[in-house]
Amino acid sequence: MSTQNPIFIPGPTNIPDVLRKAVDMPTIDHRSPLFAEILRPALASVRKVLKSADAEIFVFPSTGTGGWETAITNVLSPGDAVLATLHGRFSERWIDMCRHHGLDMQVVTQAWGDGIPADRLEEILAADKHHRIKAVLGTHNETATGVRSDISAVRRALHATRHPALLFVDGVSSVGCMDFRMDEWGVDVAVTGSQKGFMLPPGLAIVGFSRHAIAAAEHAKLARNFFDIRAMRESYAGGGYPYTPPVGLLNGLRVAGDMLLAEGLDNVFARHFRIAEGVRRAVAAWGLRLCAARPELYSDTVSAIRVPDGFDANAVVSHALNAYGVSFGTGLGEVAGKVFRIGHLGSLTEVMALSGIATAEMVLADLGIPIRLGSGVAAAQEHYRQSTSVALKRAA
Amino acid sequence: MSTQNPIFIPGPTNIPDVLRKAVDMPTIDHRSPLFAEILRPALASVRKVLKSADAEIFVFPSTGTGGWETAITNVLSPGDAVLATLHGRFSERWIDMCRHHGLDMQVVTQAWGDGIPADRLEEILAADKHHRIKAVLGTHNETATGVRSDISAVRRALHATRHPALLFVDGVSSVGCMDFRMDEWGVDVAVTGSQKGFMLPPGLAIVGFSRHAIAAAEHAKLARNFFDIRAMRESYAGGGYPYTPPVGLLNGLRVAGDMLLAEGLDNVFARHFRIAEGVRRAVAAWGLRLCAARPELYSDTVSAIRVPDGFDANAVVSHALNAYGVSFGTGLGEVAGKVFRIGHLGSLTEVMALSGIATAEMVLADLGIPIRLGSGVAAAQEHYRQSTSVALKRAA
Amino acid sequence: MSTQNPIFIPGPTNIPDVLRKAVDMPTIDHRSPLFAEILRPALASVRKVLKSADAEIFVFPSTGTGGWETAITNVLSPGDAVLATLHGRFSERWIDMCRHHGLDMQVVTQAWGDGIPADRLEEILAADKHHRIKAVLGTHNETATGVRSDISAVRRALHATRHPALLFVDGVSSVGCMDFRMDEWGVDVAVTGSQKGFMLPPGLAIVGFSRHAIAAAEHAKLARNFFDIRAMRESYAGGGYPYTPPVGLLNGLRVAGDMLLAEGLDNVFARHFRIAEGVRRAVAAWGLRLCAARPELYSDTVSAIRVPDGFDANAVVSHALNAYGVSFGTGLGEVAGKVFRIGHLGSLTEVMALSGIATAEMVLADLGIPIRLGSGVAAAQEHYRQSTSVALKRAA
Amino acid sequence: MSTQNPIFIPGPTNIPDVLRKAVDMPTIDHRSPLFAEILRPALASVRKVLKSADAEIFVFPSTGTGGWETAITNVLSPGDAVLATLHGRFSERWIDMCRHHGLDMQVVTQAWGDGIPADRLEEILAADKHHRIKAVLGTHNETATGVRSDISAVRRALHATRHPALLFVDGVSSVGCMDFRMDEWGVDVAVTGSQKGFMLPPGLAIVGFSRHAIAAAEHAKLARNFFDIRAMRESYAGGGYPYTPPVGLLNGLRVAGDMLLAEGLDNVFARHFRIAEGVRRAVAAWGLRLCAARPELYSDTVSAIRVPDGFDANAVVSHALNAYGVSFGTGLGEVAGKVFRIGHLGSLTEVMALSGIATAEMVLADLGIPIRLGSGVAAAQEHYRQSTSVALKRAA
Repeated sequence: MSTQNPIFIPGPTNIPDVLRKAVDMPTIDHRSPLFAEILRPALASVRKVLKSADAEIFVFPSTGTGGWETAITNVLSPGDAVLATLHGRFSERWIDMCRHHGLDMQVVTQAWGDGIPADRLEEILAADKHHRIKAVLGTHNETATGVRSDISAVRRALHATRHPALLFVDGVSSVGCMDFRMDEWGVDVAVTGSQKGFMLPPGLAIVGFSRHAIAAAEHAKLARNFFDIRAMRESYAGGGYPYTPPVGLLNGLRVAGDMLLAEGLDNVFARHFRIAEGVRRAVAAWGLRLCAARPELYSDTVSAIRVPDGFDANAVVSHALNAYGVSFGTGLGEVAGKVFRIGHLGSLTEVMALSGIATAEMVLADLGIPIRLGSGVAAAQEHYRQSTSVALKRAA
Repeated sequence: MSTQNPIFIPGPTNIPDVLRKAVDMPTIDHRSPLFAEILRPALASVRKVLKSADAEIFVFPSTGTGGWETAITNVLSPGDAVLATLHGRFSERWIDMCRHHGLDMQVVTQAWGDGIPADRLEEILAADKHHRIKAVLGTHNETATGVRSDISAVRRALHATRHPALLFVDGVSSVGCMDFRMDEWGVDVAVTGSQKGFMLPPGLAIVGFSRHAIAAAEHAKLARNFFDIRAMRESYAGGGYPYTPPVGLLNGLRVAGDMLLAEGLDNVFARHFRIAEGVRRAVAAWGLRLCAARPELYSDTVSAIRVPDGFDANAVVSHALNAYGVSFGTGLGEVAGKVFRIGHLGSLTEVMALSGIATAEMVLADLGIPIRLGSGVAAAQEHYRQSTSVALKRAA
Repeated sequence: MSTQNPIFIPGPTNIPDVLRKAVDMPTIDHRSPLFAEILRPALASVRKVLKSADAEIFVFPSTGTGGWETAITNVLSPGDAVLATLHGRFSERWIDMCRHHGLDMQVVTQAWGDGIPADRLEEILAADKHHRIKAVLGTHNETATGVRSDISAVRRALHATRHPALLFVDGVSSVGCMDFRMDEWGVDVAVTGSQKGFMLPPGLAIVGFSRHAIAAAEHAKLARNFFDIRAMRESYAGGGYPYTPPVGLLNGLRVAGDMLLAEGLDNVFARHFRIAEGVRRAVAAWGLRLCAARPELYSDTVSAIRVPDGFDANAVVSHALNAYGVSFGTGLGEVAGKVFRIGHLGSLTEVMALSGIATAEMVLADLGIPIRLGSGVAAAQEHYRQSTSVALKRAA
Repeated sequence: MSTQNPIFIPGPTNIPDVLRKAVDMPTIDHRSPLFAEILRPALASVRKVLKSADAEIFVFPSTGTGGWETAITNVLSPGDAVLATLHGRFSERWIDMCRHHGLDMQVVTQAWGDGIPADRLEEILAADKHHRIKAVLGTHNETATGVRSDISAVRRALHATRHPALLFVDGVSSVGCMDFRMDEWGVDVAVTGSQKGFMLPPGLAIVGFSRHAIAAAEHAKLARNFFDIRAMRESYAGGGYPYTPPVGLLNGLRVAGDMLLAEGLDNVFARHFRIAEGVRRAVAAWGLRLCAARPELYSDTVSAIRVPDGFDANAVVSHALNAYGVSFGTGLGEVAGKVFRIGHLGSLTEVMALSGIATAEMVLADLGIPIRLGSGVAAAQEHYRQSTSVALKRAA
């Protein structure tokens, strides 16, 4: 199968050539001073991408799932109450992990396609007079449904209720793509990975800990070892790593951070919006609907698209791969078979997005779903043409 | 500028990852037996791609231009009469080179957009009773105009007139993309390069010499040194090279040959036709015309597209690059400013082609050329959908 | 700093070009059937390298430390008694991890430089009439001291005492370099990583579980989530992965397995012995001693070399890097400052080893340690010359 | 065969990782403005490496042989008298090429191992009262014998005789390695390639033309086409190239130029001297002699080493490759079988050099040549240790 086509899964993303080359490096001695010259700027860049002045950044040879585990095991203790919203496959999996670790989950269930209900959380927090709830979990971008929630509203709910619970946010498929303001939103633990906004191969769990979260790590009693930030922290202080570090990926992270900051975070976010909006206009032109319930929930990194009743969304994904060599994302969990997903994050251009839209059209037509060929492309083109001046500025 | 978008110039083409890796190799000793393990299969594959049983293949660290020079200087002598057709920028340049070397050019001039007129050549050959004409030059695919000529008809003209002139064919932008039958057509020298059908970076002039051409090299009197096939031939016999060989590119050629032959030449040609036909349907849907005068002349590797009077085709190319980061080919020579070119050769998929078509639509609309967004894409999609089964077979 | 010199740390090793290219791949959809075509042969090769007929192999995006955690958390429960030998930094760290997880450690302490005392373990196992001990931990190759222990002797101790404890072996710096016989030795959990015998970048914890260990995983009560083999096992059955897999590294593992098996494991082991023996002869020629106490303990992957009293072994390592751009390994833990280490594992040739030996000589001389320049090189050369015929056979 | 060992042929050299990555780039449109951003700094760097203020630099997709052809065909006319020294295989080949082009060669023959005799040239030039001699050819570094000649003395001979002949210098295996002063020495055409001092793969002929040489190109009558600098010059003026340029290699040249200039040319030359001197001390320690007749002729890029009578130098080279996987250079031409060559140019460190010296020792011993193992290594080590401070400065 050709690897020349862009990939449209919601991560891992297409990898820029310069990042492939940054990752592909000869072995260096990770116990020598050479290592800190890679690690330190990588951590510094991540901090800036998270828009934090002083969060401590830890990077584990792992994945976003390992980042979730890092967040909870370093801060919480068995039996702690945790408040979370279940509104998609990834929020569900984090909640499952918490239960598995013996946390007392208070779960607000939303429809898949809806977001985090800050008002409902506020009621619960207000009712928690004895502050049994130690943490509030939020999935900034539900990758399964293409829903972005308002994390600042969650912080406001905590603030309004003067509740001391810490705020943990899964930003795996949002950080580096959509605005994420760790300090302003009062995020205590932010979790992401290498393979989305940072456009790298998978293999890194990237977490940011606020001062409060770091302090809590001293007393947390959940079992942790590989994911213990204390060992990580101690090693970083000496320019080292508590075990064998994934040097190539860290070097990639260093370069990816430079790339994002050189482009300018606002430009990065604008680019993601622009490309995503083209996809959404195509969906509208096809007469289809997104899984995301309302425009303010639309994700700029992934669109989950509902197929009409009577059609199998999984067939869209398998036919796209088999007939045209293009990968889209399947629906997961509750929306399996009902949606297919177009990932539009990371290293992507409008031109690449058009090839994904054009392929989706052929696939939909092949499967008998009534859309007009070229209609979605035309809607996206119209949008992309209007945003040309921005594109020009970016390329300069 | 992003390098993530496909490139749509008529060569060098997009380079498959596996070929980039084949070229990017550590230094080996080219005077050791390791070298022949790369050179020999590379030459053998080229011979098969040329559909020749016994042509001798020579590969120079050079370009197609060096291949032209190799052809003429190894076979001809000062003052030799040569018959050629001028119908585009590349046939013109080869003719200029011949003149520069003191050959007596008999040039049939055709409109740019027309092909080689075998009937006219036959008249001239028939009139050449004393066989002053030593060679007939033909440009199989005029890259400047997107015109493929019928080389077998030229051979028939030679045959009908029992004329002993040798037949030299420029297959730079056809070999490995469109059917080329060195033996069946009686081609005496075939010229190509690394950067088109072989999908490699530029840097190799690749030539095939028939038995007749090899014999002529003994007596040819044009000055040659770097491009002397006799030194090349003698070195090859011992598994060597007359000077420092471009080992990485030769290794790439070895792997590229394997790729083409594994796909099957007929499948390769069918793929090029399928992708090209989609582009042509898009052009028709836009209401534009190709430079190529008649369907039987349509090239499957490049389409030169006329812009309406009053528009500047160069602006299409510069705007595509500046606004969307996509490279098309400009018009050259007589058709400069009148046509822009979409290269659709080498490592390309239907999906990539659609992104080029979609980009061209945006550019044309931006420049005020009256086309309907999505119309060309839809026409190409319809064509690509119908040829899906072939695509599936290829991918298997 | 030049990256052209070989590296002589005891892992990560020098990475062969072909493996760097195997790891450096474009993104594929890990939820498509393409993924299993990478995963399955990778797992099958690892099983063969472990010399097991039916162990189940699991590969985590992690490191050897994660492999240790996988071993204990999937098989044991809080309070379980575990028998282990502490004789170096890495055995010590695994023991610390066990304590941290609430296991009841029965630790036999040996001098650093000595190996696992199977006779002493047998006494303890014999005394454990009620079979409180659930697992015996063994570090096959203590990377800190360059000591290889006899794992088959540990199995014999278990057998002689008819003790049902499971046998866990850290083979991080031995698997793929020195003979490891999972089935014959009755190893229940074998742990290794990508960055040693498999010659890949770090980033993978690789574990093999025997049937007994798999069965135990159903009842083990230690907390685990990211490292839960049950989720891994279930996903593998469907050709998938429980979270985002490190596809490039897995592809590298697939190719590395092919390489090792194509060379032949016995040849791989013989090559490691041959290169290591050259280093040892150099050490003897310098009049220095290894940390490893006796020849039967000598590791073929790393030599820890004692510097004479009054000298600082860390200075050897830092001077080698600063003055000559070569990385050796420092002493760790109890032998810090007393030994420096030459790693001679993975992708290495005799020729590369000689450059390491020659560099060490210059460094020792620079630091005033009384050795004769060229003496170690000569001793190693003599050894390598005698083993030439083996080298020739390998190269063929 | 392992590609992990350094290579010790006198070019192509070991290629630094950063240059392999610079060459390995995706296709760009060479007719777009992107191309000039690569070409122009590449040419500017070459000019600085040649130590010229205003030479015009031309780069052809070719090799050093093509550079020779470029030099003579652009400046000379049939029948022109040319003065040259024959003292090795490469000077001989350039002379042969000149004869082949119909030049009237006046050849001073020296022993292979001797250099250019400026006093003898001065006599000939003085005797050439009518200035029939149009050019003097000099091979700065005879790669076949490891002899560096004094080009400034040749210029002095021209000056002393007030002779207007142009001075052409083959700097293929010296430029970027040993001091080369185009302006100060009055070199009119300097020839080099990509694969020696620039540490790149082969594929580029690089030439510098003085103002006088450029002027002569207007009237030169030797046949040239592919190698015509006039077309090259005209294209460069517009940021273009007369045919398809080897973009990746040009990008590599750009980066290689930056590397050399960042290290500092004097440091580059000192590094080559330092490494070469180590090799020479090893040769002396073995009791062998260089082909180069006197110390002032010793080349810092390649040492041709005489084997004792009765031994076959070719066996050294073949045994090194077969038994140890290391490539040395064979003797060529008159010294075939009498010398083997150790290339020590381009991307090389002292540590790598020691592995070559150590390998040569094993090979010599294996073949029964009476040397003491370790003796050459020790001599080189002693030298390298003393030059450590320079190494440290470079690494900083």
